[in-house]
Amino acid sequence: MIVWTLPTSADRIVFSDRGEPKGMHVVVNAAVSADGKLSSRRRTQVRISGPDDFDRVDQLRADSDAVMVGVGTVLADDPHLTLDSVERVDARRAAGKPPRPARVVADSNARTPADARVLDDVATTYLLVSKSAPPTRVEALRDAGAEVLVAGSGRVALATALAALDERGLDRLMVEGGGELIFSLFEAGLVDALSVYVGSLVIGGADAPTLADGDGFVDDFPALDLESVERLDDGVLLSYTVP
Amino acid sequence: MIVWTLPTSADRIVFSDRGEPKGMHVVVNAAVSADGKLSSRRRTQVRISGPDDFDRVDQLRADSDAVMVGVGTVLADDPHLTLDSVERVDARRAAGKPPRPARVVADSNARTPADARVLDDVATTYLLVSKSAPPTRVEALRDAGAEVLVAGSGRVALATALAALDERGLDRLMVEGGGELIFSLFEAGLVDALSVYVGSLVIGGADAPTLADGDGFVDDFPALDLESVERLDDGVLLSYTVP
Repeated sequence: MIVWTLPTSADRIVFSDRGEPKGMHVVVNAAVSADGKLSSRRRTQVRISGPDDFDRVDQLRADSDAVMVGVGTVLADDPHLTLDSVERVDARRAAGKPPRPARVVADSNARTPADARVLDDVATTYLLVSKSAPPTRVEALRDAGAEVLVAGSGRVALATALAALDERGLDRLMVEGGGELIFSLFEAGLVDALSVYVGSLVIGGADAPTLADGDGFVDDFPALDLESVERLDDGVLLSYTVP
Repeated sequence: MIVWTLPTSADRIVFSDRGEPKGMHVVVNAAVSADGKLSSRRRTQVRISGPDDFDRVDQLRADSDAVMVGVGTVLADDPHLTLDSVERVDARRAAGKPPRPARVVADSNARTPADARVLDDVATTYLLVSKSAPPTRVEALRDAGAEVLVAGSGRVALATALAALDERGLDRLMVEGGGELIFSLFEAGLVDALSVYVGSLVIGGADAPTLADGDGFVDDFPALDLESVERLDDGVLLSYTVP
């Protein structure tokens, strides 16, 4: 059983590291260059895909209960993580869902800026922090509208945090990056599916962010099942499940 | 016009940086994980593809005049870079070609070990070094059987070196990595085609080698044309040309 609360101050946190999000479906979606990069070493946004892939991603967001990124992506891109399509907002509302999926930021040390676009009021935003996050930062982000979940010491305990989201009824989670978060989710065995749009360009760079960064695996590499291959815009969409 | 010689000692080098390999066709071929890695951060070989892709690569080698790698690949893997298939050796011989393609190592500082497998006598091996390569190392590698071409200061001037190979009648060059060499070739505008086998696994790692490392591009990213998409083994082969 997961034990957790939405703490209102740092001394009232109750959490458990034993939880796993049994009922949650986690799909990672990213666009990379032909050499596997999410961006250049400058970490500015690079246009990798095109209108057909943007539309696919918008639909995938609309089909999800929550859209998740790591704090590095928030700091680099300040994404809004909401829906482009008004029709999809209306369709969600008509289906009795929140008009837009919730947003989730994995942010161990509560570094999200209080004026980040992801914290605006068009949707609920969950901030996953560790016990090491400075209480003043946590309080400032709660004041800015974030629902703060605390799990883990030093780094967010992702399994526990996702289990907490799962208990809130967020069954379908879409993860949009970056590479540190994606690696951590694979490392924790939390990924059910992976969609990779491979754009027809070379970015290069030993220091450029890739689809899966972090420490990396050195053996027991997670295997994928390639479910489909689809040409889209001027690139290709590879869809995998994780057995 | 290209001016170069095969020097017999460091003081008899004649070279020009103005040359370009006009008549040469350069194809880069590599196998990567779904996250774009050639190997793990430990740089040990990871099985990314399977028997159908190995056979395709052997045919691509047989169709090439030379097979090229960077010295990092020689140091990490000690590859032989020759043909597995006896039939392909016989077919080349019957066609009046050398039975096996030549081997080329880009090795600015002549770090290839004298007992590297790539220096054995089953095929000609060209070592591309810069003027900064220690003369004693160069001499040792020449003694070990390498044909040494010198171009560039500090780093090999790839355009000049490939032009020298081109003048020797090596019209089709296949490049097998690693990521530093592949990036340098894209940076120099020397790549005509790129084949990427994407294996169905995750390697991860911010420090793991990728298809294109080096400094990377920060703008003017080289565009590719996706010519074909083919499922092979349990992954997918993406074939691009460089416009």
